[in-house]
Amino acid sequence: MQVIKAAELRKEVYRRETNIQDVDDAVEEIVSQIQKKGDEALLAYSERFDGIDDLQNLKADVTKSFKIDENLTSAIDVAIENISTFHSSQQESVKKVSTTKGVTCWRKSVAIENVGLYIPGGTAPLFSTLLMLAVPAQIAGCTQIVVCTPPNDNGELDPVIGYVANLLGLEKIFLVGGAQAIAAMAFGTETIPKVDKIFGPGNAYVTSAKLFVQKFGVAIDLPAGPSELAVIADDFANPEFVAADLLSQAEHGPDSVVYLLTNSVALANKVQAEINKQVIQLPRKEIATKALENSLIILGSDLAEVLEVSNQLAPEHLILATQNPHDLSEGVINAGSVFLGKYSSESFGDYASGTNHTLPTNGYAKSYSGLSLDSFVKKITFQEVTKEGIENLGPAVEMMADAEQLYAHKNAISVRLNRLKNEI
Amino acid sequence: MQVIKAAELRKEVYRRETNIQDVDDAVEEIVSQIQKKGDEALLAYSERFDGIDDLQNLKADVTKSFKIDENLTSAIDVAIENISTFHSSQQESVKKVSTTKGVTCWRKSVAIENVGLYIPGGTAPLFSTLLMLAVPAQIAGCTQIVVCTPPNDNGELDPVIGYVANLLGLEKIFLVGGAQAIAAMAFGTETIPKVDKIFGPGNAYVTSAKLFVQKFGVAIDLPAGPSELAVIADDFANPEFVAADLLSQAEHGPDSVVYLLTNSVALANKVQAEINKQVIQLPRKEIATKALENSLIILGSDLAEVLEVSNQLAPEHLILATQNPHDLSEGVINAGSVFLGKYSSESFGDYASGTNHTLPTNGYAKSYSGLSLDSFVKKITFQEVTKEGIENLGPAVEMMADAEQLYAHKNAISVRLNRLKNEI
Repeated sequence: MQVIKAAELRKEVYRRETNIQDVDDAVEEIVSQIQKKGDEALLAYSERFDGIDDLQNLKADVTKSFKIDENLTSAIDVAIENISTFHSSQQESVKKVSTTKGVTCWRKSVAIENVGLYIPGGTAPLFSTLLMLAVPAQIAGCTQIVVCTPPNDNGELDPVIGYVANLLGLEKIFLVGGAQAIAAMAFGTETIPKVDKIFGPGNAYVTSAKLFVQKFGVAIDLPAGPSELAVIADDFANPEFVAADLLSQAEHGPDSVVYLLTNSVALANKVQAEINKQVIQLPRKEIATKALENSLIILGSDLAEVLEVSNQLAPEHLILATQNPHDLSEGVINAGSVFLGKYSSESFGDYASGTNHTLPTNGYAKSYSGLSLDSFVKKITFQEVTKEGIENLGPAVEMMADAEQLYAHKNAISVRLNRLKNEI
Repeated sequence: MQVIKAAELRKEVYRRETNIQDVDDAVEEIVSQIQKKGDEALLAYSERFDGIDDLQNLKADVTKSFKIDENLTSAIDVAIENISTFHSSQQESVKKVSTTKGVTCWRKSVAIENVGLYIPGGTAPLFSTLLMLAVPAQIAGCTQIVVCTPPNDNGELDPVIGYVANLLGLEKIFLVGGAQAIAAMAFGTETIPKVDKIFGPGNAYVTSAKLFVQKFGVAIDLPAGPSELAVIADDFANPEFVAADLLSQAEHGPDSVVYLLTNSVALANKVQAEINKQVIQLPRKEIATKALENSLIILGSDLAEVLEVSNQLAPEHLILATQNPHDLSEGVINAGSVFLGKYSSESFGDYASGTNHTLPTNGYAKSYSGLSLDSFVKKITFQEVTKEGIENLGPAVEMMADAEQLYAHKNAISVRLNRLKNEI
């Protein structure tokens, strides 16, 4: 990892370019084909990219039983339990607020009816992403949950994903990946139902497709990019733990980025040595090594300075491996999810602590939250104005509508006030 | 207004096409010019579209005093008070949740630091939109609030917008409109600061620019389109009130859409007659008449049927002008904001009931919420795992990471568990 002083960081370090014209052009073509031709186009892409040449095989059969390791089933049960507990705690009760006498406002969370979950395939089957998307969708009460995921090398559904789908009672699992999966869920085809919002991470094509289909009335969770981790560590940190955490994100992909932010040169050196020791033992060492080349050790004069850098980076994941992580956490302004203290490995958030692992990357943590129950509902506002309310508040609204030259807006109040006057 | 039976509604009525290639192309050119040339390009567009030919004049002076009607200032005070009350009630306190013994998760709302508010000019100065965006931004605690709004015909800031900016202590008001304003806030220029999220309604160019700049790391509130209102009314509704409400949205623009959904032919006829009577008295009667041509009266056999149609339309605003609006409101699944009962004119929500008037249009209410305090914060998740926590939950995480073939993720847990074992 390259070492740089916090004071010398140039602005361009803070954000990577993601607008790739080639990808956008290819995606636009795929999306427009699916929009125009539905299943016919979908099958053509599936044949080309995934080797599936029969529409019948696009829908996975999740009613059959998937055999997986018994210890893994217990681990999945624990993960579901914890994700459920934390996301259920995000439920909001209706709270009626009186703003003016006779005027009551409230809001109510209502599930998004049709949601589409994209589960990337890639080098490893990511059943954890299915947990992170489907569990909150079910808590929210979404009526129809559609799942798209690319088939494995045998053209089949990954058995662990199948097991999870079965366990959660998900029925609509389609073996479709890439931009064509996003387009199919956005417009609907004969085989794949149209949804109102699309969730889930993916490669550059998937992200580009998600951004593009928004124009056609579909919402998306967030533009997810390559994984990121920043660790803020001081002399009290355990270099072995810090190195293991940095490597855990580095193994995701060659474009992953990890940062070690520290006020201690000694700690930085120890972590480097530990990384060198640990990386060679990893099956994905080539990927991790490539990711480490894009990564940085950032040295600051104190923790306040490196925290400021961290807030500028707005990392997806942030570990606070310092003597007083709670104090430091008070100053975190931009991050997706934060891990406090030496036992809080980032891996907990990926699987089972209960927080969601679908988080904003590439600086988006400055403006986006990670997924939560909020992502699967709309919060509809309601208001009720009584006779007393219109008498109290009506004249102010008439005045403002008049100032905006919106006389019909004003008139909608006036006809009511006049009627009330005549009733007396 | 055209009359149609609910059972005969075709699917295409439910959503209008918004992807306009000409607009997108023009916007892409404007955005790329601003990105490359900053102020130089901004000034060129401002001269062309708004007649401002000096960079000095782009920044409005809001320190001077703006004289406006005294009654209007009181009305604005009431509006601010009510918007504050309702949006403050949306604040979320930190709630720590223990998911596994030794594992604690919580989330904290943190203000988005830099926000950009777009206030459209158009036919009337919309100071109410400034209230709806700036008041929640200030409650959230956003550090920097940038406002862009086109100048009036004299090349100046609208005095009511100036008054509101002054009252709220907003300092960064720029006289820039259209796609160039969105681009300037997305990338920053020498004059206009870069922001993290852009809010506010606008015409097709503004909306297209908002969707486009998302690719470059900026978030947006929602893709806002032409105004919509649906009124569900039965024989208990007052036709004069219903007609006035329908006209209040129809006057917004020729592309506004209003719907009357009813189980009563008699009521529909009375509302039609009232519309004909009222519309001729409106200064904006030509706009309203044009909007009424796109609009529909939808007749259902009962209220349940028209409510179902309403949920398919997912209207921005929905008035329930029925005998039992509370009962009916329980079945509302898709809508931006709902108004219950005969005195709850939609105008209240536009100005002063306390709810936000920036709401999802064109079917987006199926997946988007209107603006709220949530829109101005990120909800960052935190987790802390203790020694006990890793002993309880660590093995499950190791198991799942192993199943996903992410061995470095597993190792980040293993090194800690091993260390703990050795400590005993």
